[in-house]
Amino acid sequence: MQHKASVSDIPSCTSRLLPFSFSSSSSSLGVKRSSKRSKHPHSWLLAAHSLSCQTLFAALLRGTMEEALAPLRAAVREQGDLVARLKEKGVPELELNNALAELKARKKTLEAKELALKPKDDSVDKVKMEDTLKRRFFYDQAFAIYGGVSGLYDFGPVGCALKNNILQVWRQHFIQEEQILEIDCTMLTPEPVLKTSGHVDKFADYMVKDTKTGECFRADHLLKANLKMKMTDDALPAEKVAEMEDVITQMDNYTQKELGELFAKYNVKSPSTGNDLTPPISFNLMFKTSIGPGGNTPGYLRPETAQGMFLNFKRLLEFNQGKLPFGAAQIGNSFRNEISPRSGLIRVREFTMAEIEHFVDPNEKVHPKFSNVADLEILLFSSKAQTSGRPAEVMRLGDAVEQGIINNSVLGYFIGRIYLYLLKVGLSKDKVRFRQHMENEMAHYACDCWDAESKTSYGWIEIVGCADRSCYDLSCHSRATKVPLVAEKPLKEPKVVNIVKFEPNRGAIGAAYKKDAKLIFEFLEVCDECFISEQEKLLKERGEFSVTTEGKSFKLSKDMVAVKRFQKTLHVEEIVPNVIEPSFGIGRIMYSIFEHSFHTRQGDEQRTYFSFPATVSPYKCCILPLSPNQEFTPFVKQLSEALTRNGVSHKVDDSSGSIGRRYARSDEIGVAFGITIDFDTVNKTPHTATLRDRDSMRQIRVEVDALPGLILGLANGTSTWPQLEAKYPIFEGQETSKKE
Amino acid sequence: MQHKASVSDIPSCTSRLLPFSFSSSSSSLGVKRSSKRSKHPHSWLLAAHSLSCQTLFAALLRGTMEEALAPLRAAVREQGDLVARLKEKGVPELELNNALAELKARKKTLEAKELALKPKDDSVDKVKMEDTLKRRFFYDQAFAIYGGVSGLYDFGPVGCALKNNILQVWRQHFIQEEQILEIDCTMLTPEPVLKTSGHVDKFADYMVKDTKTGECFRADHLLKANLKMKMTDDALPAEKVAEMEDVITQMDNYTQKELGELFAKYNVKSPSTGNDLTPPISFNLMFKTSIGPGGNTPGYLRPETAQGMFLNFKRLLEFNQGKLPFGAAQIGNSFRNEISPRSGLIRVREFTMAEIEHFVDPNEKVHPKFSNVADLEILLFSSKAQTSGRPAEVMRLGDAVEQGIINNSVLGYFIGRIYLYLLKVGLSKDKVRFRQHMENEMAHYACDCWDAESKTSYGWIEIVGCADRSCYDLSCHSRATKVPLVAEKPLKEPKVVNIVKFEPNRGAIGAAYKKDAKLIFEFLEVCDECFISEQEKLLKERGEFSVTTEGKSFKLSKDMVAVKRFQKTLHVEEIVPNVIEPSFGIGRIMYSIFEHSFHTRQGDEQRTYFSFPATVSPYKCCILPLSPNQEFTPFVKQLSEALTRNGVSHKVDDSSGSIGRRYARSDEIGVAFGITIDFDTVNKTPHTATLRDRDSMRQIRVEVDALPGLILGLANGTSTWPQLEAKYPIFEGQETSKKE
Repeated sequence: MQHKASVSDIPSCTSRLLPFSFSSSSSSLGVKRSSKRSKHPHSWLLAAHSLSCQTLFAALLRGTMEEALAPLRAAVREQGDLVARLKEKGVPELELNNALAELKARKKTLEAKELALKPKDDSVDKVKMEDTLKRRFFYDQAFAIYGGVSGLYDFGPVGCALKNNILQVWRQHFIQEEQILEIDCTMLTPEPVLKTSGHVDKFADYMVKDTKTGECFRADHLLKANLKMKMTDDALPAEKVAEMEDVITQMDNYTQKELGELFAKYNVKSPSTGNDLTPPISFNLMFKTSIGPGGNTPGYLRPETAQGMFLNFKRLLEFNQGKLPFGAAQIGNSFRNEISPRSGLIRVREFTMAEIEHFVDPNEKVHPKFSNVADLEILLFSSKAQTSGRPAEVMRLGDAVEQGIINNSVLGYFIGRIYLYLLKVGLSKDKVRFRQHMENEMAHYACDCWDAESKTSYGWIEIVGCADRSCYDLSCHSRATKVPLVAEKPLKEPKVVNIVKFEPNRGAIGAAYKKDAKLIFEFLEVCDECFISEQEKLLKERGEFSVTTEGKSFKLSKDMVAVKRFQKTLHVEEIVPNVIEPSFGIGRIMYSIFEHSFHTRQGDEQRTYFSFPATVSPYKCCILPLSPNQEFTPFVKQLSEALTRNGVSHKVDDSSGSIGRRYARSDEIGVAFGITIDFDTVNKTPHTATLRDRDSMRQIRVEVDALPGLILGLANGTSTWPQLEAKYPIFEGQETSKKE
Repeated sequence: MQHKASVSDIPSCTSRLLPFSFSSSSSSLGVKRSSKRSKHPHSWLLAAHSLSCQTLFAALLRGTMEEALAPLRAAVREQGDLVARLKEKGVPELELNNALAELKARKKTLEAKELALKPKDDSVDKVKMEDTLKRRFFYDQAFAIYGGVSGLYDFGPVGCALKNNILQVWRQHFIQEEQILEIDCTMLTPEPVLKTSGHVDKFADYMVKDTKTGECFRADHLLKANLKMKMTDDALPAEKVAEMEDVITQMDNYTQKELGELFAKYNVKSPSTGNDLTPPISFNLMFKTSIGPGGNTPGYLRPETAQGMFLNFKRLLEFNQGKLPFGAAQIGNSFRNEISPRSGLIRVREFTMAEIEHFVDPNEKVHPKFSNVADLEILLFSSKAQTSGRPAEVMRLGDAVEQGIINNSVLGYFIGRIYLYLLKVGLSKDKVRFRQHMENEMAHYACDCWDAESKTSYGWIEIVGCADRSCYDLSCHSRATKVPLVAEKPLKEPKVVNIVKFEPNRGAIGAAYKKDAKLIFEFLEVCDECFISEQEKLLKERGEFSVTTEGKSFKLSKDMVAVKRFQKTLHVEEIVPNVIEPSFGIGRIMYSIFEHSFHTRQGDEQRTYFSFPATVSPYKCCILPLSPNQEFTPFVKQLSEALTRNGVSHKVDDSSGSIGRRYARSDEIGVAFGITIDFDTVNKTPHTATLRDRDSMRQIRVEVDALPGLILGLANGTSTWPQLEAKYPIFEGQETSKKE
């Protein structure tokens, strides 16, 4: 049986397989929930509901949002404590998982309330923003003249320039600063690779189909929409409302069977036709194709860029002259065939990612440059805070690593660098947090995982994942290909080490698996300690374990294989590196920048602007001749050429609108600075022009020849607007008005 | 019947559909060739063969390669003249096409001989070069640890950096310099779009299959290999050899049926098994997939990026405030499912393109900046030269436009800009030429088309196409979607214009096509003048024409539709813009750079280097401490940080090899400059280090603090090595040797 939330039993299906799920409806929680449980609305939820509007309003009036949230926090804490007790007791997995699902549901309710209570001035005018994004062609639906395809977007000139700049800053900030090895791999990927990574079997969502028209719906989304509609019925008893809300909250935890039962229980039909629906079926989210003409090499469009770094590990290690640690990175498009994409840029079928795989000796997980970021104060939402109902808190990064809240300083270093990057490209400091995965959200092999989240009108959304994935990925590919993906560490002195190996009982395996026995022997020979120890545990607990090689699975029992430990003198040590993986969703970062930087001019509702930092602004400046007067033309041309020579992207607007109107058009797309050529430029020597700052709308007067250098400095971040204001005269108005 | 070379009858299948075919085996020639013809070996070819090796050698000794080529040139000229006479006479299409095919074959033989006679020192040591590219991971086969997939390559750190720089220079050179609107569209493309563009029906190659194993072979490649093998038989009569050589030369011109007959005639079997082969079948080269879960939205991976610009034309025009001309561009990956890819980076299944669509008023095809490039002297291989057996000749671009060799100055401007770009990124001036498509190679709607070609070990290969595609693409999509893709040109004074419209005979069409008549009326209503005039011609010549709308085709005869011409007073003029399309194959450009810049150090065969221009060098410099001495470390660190701050990509090599060995490693991957930190750096103030030029291996001595700025200048092209040599002392050797 396939199910989306399968971390707990299938190591390969982790947050990696659903890299950009909403954190607010996190889908990587590996918990099965008994269907029985959902039939009992919870008293705490009803209690939360009984907080009337007046109470909430009053609480707000007293400025004590916390008062409104207190019962919800208490509910989370209570359940968190229960989970801790159950773990300690070592209760059966099913019982523990039920408790965890309950905990997650309570967390979610708390978070929803927190967001609902946020001050109003904190929110963006989304309708106006989206109108601007469409009208000025930041991005828009692809293939619109052919009717469009949902989940596919084209970036226009402004969006494309912004995206390029975001990536360029990424390259400077990570690749150059950390001397990371950037590579560029194909998107087409043959099936065996994605079989090993787990995507072929596990990268799936549930859908239901209209039994007559065949129209498809994503099961959880449809069920949620259906219940929300039912809940608008005023006649519905409060208990029923609470029950439905509970179902919505727990949506990600249901198994295929449970989902089917809920569709039946609530009698959900096709929203388009009213027809019956099929039971939920699993749908793999990868785009499938066939490589070459024979039809016998199935392939997929990659669902992530990470695999390229793992497959090229040996070449990269050699390029780095055999030394650890080193980072590899890739920027490129990935694909997921969403069942029914919504939410604009947040959930799309083709998207740009930037991923780093930092390969490190597991015994040396200390970052030499951690001190550079240790003093950063970052909003951290630790696993502990989440399970005890506490809010996220601002912490010094150094303290978080010292106190063991963040597992190690390599992970800590990347968290710090990610944070700095996000601020550099324009996210609001107070709308970024790092949320730690709770133990049950994490793959069993990962030792720690933090998501950078951004607060948007969609709630807190994951924009960057940062996981310590231990040796998992390299080990998987190594086992599947029988190519050792290890680094050699020369020892200063020969060393006697403990070796762990499988010791197959060749007779028993031969008897059981006949001619496949050879495959099994080969497989067992190349397994690394990390994997052997895991299997040894299973051998002890269950008396057997399974292995898969060349597409076949074999059960190996205690009498077929043992684990042998012995000593050996080594001159070189073989290491399977651990991997720290920061993984960036560029589209989501870009969308967050839009929301965090969209503003309306005070006193003029109709004029809006994006306060993009100059570094990422789609155009660094615009050049505006005061009027279509021909005398301005040579200055416009000369400036434009000088800016081009200096590599400063700019836009000339010599259309006939008033200067104010043209500035408004330029601000609307977030052009950082503006230059006006006026009669003083023409009439006076040395020739000067005005330079205007988009955000403050203040203007200074500068010699024309100096402008390209000044703007380059502003765009590179080597100077700031206040510095320029201190140096150049503020512009009040031109002194001449025509050719003198 | 599908066939690859179909320009002459299907407008949508043009060089566009086979954008990166070898020019030396150009596959866009729209000529069907009678199978009868190929049975008669041509006397001129035999004559060419009878030029013995001695004769050739003697000719070379006298330095008169031309003497050896004279008979071949004469043969081309003779056939060129014949074609011209036949055209004048207006002979039937079949006869003309036969003559054209013959002309093309003679051209090819001439070119092959020219390349064979080129001086030996002109050629690259390909084995050594490819070893370097693989060993230092410029690029390598993708998925190698899984056995690899042919036609798919991963770029390693050096290749990826080089590629990024090539693209970055492209952006500066085109996007910024020309204020082009860059966009970024999805690769996933729904079927109707590619149906309109002609790719669904015509983007195909022929293949044959092993009847038992199902193994597939590209028909033309297999036939060619088979004949070449047969020709190695010394016992084969000269006439037979000439016949086979003729077949190889004409390979691209055969129809499906003719190919099948040749396979039978030469009794070609599977080269792997010796089994029989199926007759040639057409294989579409696009990767197919399914968008969404329903299975009813077939889609493809785009075979080119151009369609994105056409589909977004309206939005781009609006972004440009409704004004023509403007350019749009896109950089991104495209895909073609080659039957059996070979030739390394030259023919791959996934590749990066950069395309510009310059939209221009057809009545104003004059480029205001043409004078900037008019004085360039470029090797042009005009259609005229090709049909008269003359070699390509160096011409002033301005003269070529004035003399009408290049159709218009917009096209001329782009040819000049492309040329400058290619030199900037490192192609050899004497290994770049522009070859004009001959009339019969070109789509009937294109008015001129030139390919930038690069001379490599594969012969002259097309690396950039530059076509004037008139109004074709916008018209197609407009007719298919019924969305007018036009620009409005306000008239200074109202203007009386001649209107051309279809005038349907509603009765006749209604009677013939019943309820589909409405579709036809709608279709006819939105047709533009360009299309109407073409159909009018067909109506006159053949009495009918066909239209396709919403997937259905209809024949319209003289009695169903007429063309109406009348006058109308207009205040605004609607224009279907023409398109000039420069289309760059980045992988091919990159491969050409490799071949053109690979060198061996004089006197040391084992030491090689790539002389990449600093602008595109994968790393701008390396930092080498003289030895692992700890005293050097702070200087290395300080310099590395300063270079990073200045955005200068670099590589620190503090491994234990000798300084010479480490420089050799650095040269091998084309690092432009090198810095050595030695004891003088440590001991003397101000602290200085050596700066070394890769190509000349000369060194100067410079203050450490000045180095980042100097290298940035060299990388940006604002300064040159000779300038620095004039300013700083040449380095001879360090004066101190340990801490004093």
